[in-house]
Amino acid sequence: MSRHKIVLDEDSLPTHWYNLGADLPLPAPPLHPGTLQPVGPEDLAPLFPMSIILQEVSGEAQHEIPEEVRQAYRIWRPTPLMRAERFEQALGLKGVRIYYKYEGGSPSGSHKPNTAVPQAFYCAQDGRRRIATETGAGQWGSALAYATQLYGLECEVFMVGISYRQKPYRRVMMETFGATVHSSPSSATNTGRAALEVDPESLGSLGLAISEAVERAATDPEAAYSLGSVLNHVLMHQTVIGLEAKEQLAAFGEKGPDVVIGCAGGGSNFAGISFPFLRDKIAGAEIEIIAVEPASCPTLTRGVYAYDYGDAVGMAPLVAMHTLGHDFMPPGIHAGGLRYHGMAPLVSHAQNQGLIRAEAYGQLDCFAAGIQFAKAEGILPAPEPTHAIMGVIEAARRAEASGKEQVILFNLCGHGHFDMQAYDDYLSGQLQDHAMPEGERDRALAAIADFPAAPAVV
Amino acid sequence: MSRHKIVLDEDSLPTHWYNLGADLPLPAPPLHPGTLQPVGPEDLAPLFPMSIILQEVSGEAQHEIPEEVRQAYRIWRPTPLMRAERFEQALGLKGVRIYYKYEGGSPSGSHKPNTAVPQAFYCAQDGRRRIATETGAGQWGSALAYATQLYGLECEVFMVGISYRQKPYRRVMMETFGATVHSSPSSATNTGRAALEVDPESLGSLGLAISEAVERAATDPEAAYSLGSVLNHVLMHQTVIGLEAKEQLAAFGEKGPDVVIGCAGGGSNFAGISFPFLRDKIAGAEIEIIAVEPASCPTLTRGVYAYDYGDAVGMAPLVAMHTLGHDFMPPGIHAGGLRYHGMAPLVSHAQNQGLIRAEAYGQLDCFAAGIQFAKAEGILPAPEPTHAIMGVIEAARRAEASGKEQVILFNLCGHGHFDMQAYDDYLSGQLQDHAMPEGERDRALAAIADFPAAPAVV
Repeated sequence: MSRHKIVLDEDSLPTHWYNLGADLPLPAPPLHPGTLQPVGPEDLAPLFPMSIILQEVSGEAQHEIPEEVRQAYRIWRPTPLMRAERFEQALGLKGVRIYYKYEGGSPSGSHKPNTAVPQAFYCAQDGRRRIATETGAGQWGSALAYATQLYGLECEVFMVGISYRQKPYRRVMMETFGATVHSSPSSATNTGRAALEVDPESLGSLGLAISEAVERAATDPEAAYSLGSVLNHVLMHQTVIGLEAKEQLAAFGEKGPDVVIGCAGGGSNFAGISFPFLRDKIAGAEIEIIAVEPASCPTLTRGVYAYDYGDAVGMAPLVAMHTLGHDFMPPGIHAGGLRYHGMAPLVSHAQNQGLIRAEAYGQLDCFAAGIQFAKAEGILPAPEPTHAIMGVIEAARRAEASGKEQVILFNLCGHGHFDMQAYDDYLSGQLQDHAMPEGERDRALAAIADFPAAPAVV
Repeated sequence: MSRHKIVLDEDSLPTHWYNLGADLPLPAPPLHPGTLQPVGPEDLAPLFPMSIILQEVSGEAQHEIPEEVRQAYRIWRPTPLMRAERFEQALGLKGVRIYYKYEGGSPSGSHKPNTAVPQAFYCAQDGRRRIATETGAGQWGSALAYATQLYGLECEVFMVGISYRQKPYRRVMMETFGATVHSSPSSATNTGRAALEVDPESLGSLGLAISEAVERAATDPEAAYSLGSVLNHVLMHQTVIGLEAKEQLAAFGEKGPDVVIGCAGGGSNFAGISFPFLRDKIAGAEIEIIAVEPASCPTLTRGVYAYDYGDAVGMAPLVAMHTLGHDFMPPGIHAGGLRYHGMAPLVSHAQNQGLIRAEAYGQLDCFAAGIQFAKAEGILPAPEPTHAIMGVIEAARRAEASGKEQVILFNLCGHGHFDMQAYDDYLSGQLQDHAMPEGERDRALAAIADFPAAPAVV
């Protein structure tokens, strides 16, 4: 067998993040949800430290990673790049080589700490004493809970009520790292109290949890708000994944990937693996870059490019992105991290520029692909990256059919040890696919029909 | 800060396991539970392939690791060695350097695949088509489930009934890797059917599950039986941990450890980290080697060295070891992997030779130590290695008190992502310590009073 993995020494950690925005024409700017005017740094200052705001609007391609962040990254980075030779054999492939970057060895078991750590660092540097955030099933909350205590910050997490009750283990992880976790809606905010007055038994929603976290941060000058995906600076922090992968592929003796694949919900792990290769593509390299999304929440494949709220309730700015409409409610598929009504503006922009394309698959195919991968490679993937694996299988089949020798790279963004209920449901035949009905799409998009038009380039 | 970790290239995987038995005087041999005569290879042949039996009784210090096993080891090995500098700072230490080997990145999240893979390989090489085993909470079963399918073997796991019902996620992991999992007692064996006849609602026990697995293997010529700890060959397979650590410590620039610490239940992870350093100690090096066990199941600290059944019911051979008596039933502490009534014969033998010593701690102190470690180092330990961490803290305090500069090495044998209920119980104040009452010790030891005497050396 060939070499299985390349592990980089910690001295090889990237020194700079890569900002794709600097290499693309300017997209339509975010708008204030009240005034519909472009959002300025001063609008964001109550919620974010200025160093993060400047990253968010930066036109520089390279941003230096602070030394303190690089030191913390060493706790789990550089992450390994593996050749999936046993998986290739299981698929009966010849002439296709599959590589994957594995982010599941981090403190919370996914790629999320890559941005949680610098966000916590900048907040501490800015003199903030606590960070408020929301979390759905808990991936993001547990990453931020770990990161905040590294810098002596308090962490307050508003967790969607139904997950708080049904998925306690992520809550326990956050509490173990020292965070305070509220079941949202909570009695800790005006928003939460109002929701509880209407319905004391409310199960909550991500939109409501965002609103509570934003209120918390906005009403406390020592607090900041933090987001785990979607925004430009979050995507930039994740580019350490692709930057390391590039060096590791070279160490494997590969000239580079022919195909790069990541699953896409908000867009951050996809951006992390693909943006550094997009830079090469912009410079002329022939690379196919594919975002894989669930058929039940097909933002890039069936959404429209339009201005829409970043959240579900209109507290967040209007951003130009691919969206299914902010009140689209995806079915309760197990890949909770892919259930977002929109897509990161920068990923959407890259699709408009013809640099990436998207595919959508149902969860039954994805779980089958994930289990085949786990048996071969020994890593049980979280439900989200099983979508990437399904995309890899399809790309490999296309390559074989065309007779081309190809190198496929994908991001295995997290392990599935907190997702065993999902595997049990799949193995016991209790899961089904949920394609989005056309009528539901039309209904949800009608809600944003009166928003300003979003030009692809300004 | 100093360097955080040393990651070895896969070409640096050890080529040989180390067999401590070859460097010690002969201990008292295992006895057949019926005849009380020494067990010969032919007695074991129905259950184990001959290559494993020969390792079990070997007098050679070095055993070559088959190339196929080394290839499979590369899936997760070499594992990293970390300097716990943030943990040292959290403890306020000066002059004490703490290093840990991390085995939680394996396919099942613990050190168990280190022996599951070679055991499955040898069984396949021997022409066996399936392996039967028992599992308590599921750590061992999930490692073997992964390993067997690498070599095309079927895997049948008898899981203690109460765990099967209360801890479904490890069962799901085994099933995801393709194993058949029975709730024990099951209707699949005579032993199980007899138990169900007496009590159709039986919650099972590890002893019963062992009996079912052994019956299964003994009555099917194409099947083998497999054990996850205690036996000599299992301990030998685990020495890859310490052999790698030795090379990595040198790469950190350390002359070697002053103290080596592992938690000890059956003894396999402790043996894995410590036996290669025991070889140096036998050759004259000054190294303190400490096995840490739970106060509720204090085999080495409060047990006696005697002949006792390896299992709970007398189907397994009598082995000379430190034991609390085979019908000792430890309280339901969360470190399920440390709840074994005996200790590996080779670990017991090393204690008799004055080469190692043991300490015991209550689970409350251990969870507190584990959480302090998790916050600093970003790895949430399984409940078992929190005992090792507690031992490390005590060793570091002793070193500081004596003014000596010291290097402490310990084994972090698995992550705790399947153990969040334990952390929740701890954080919510629902756990308590269980010291073993003297009367219970006397009662359990009385049951083995008539067994043959076990001389420390023959």
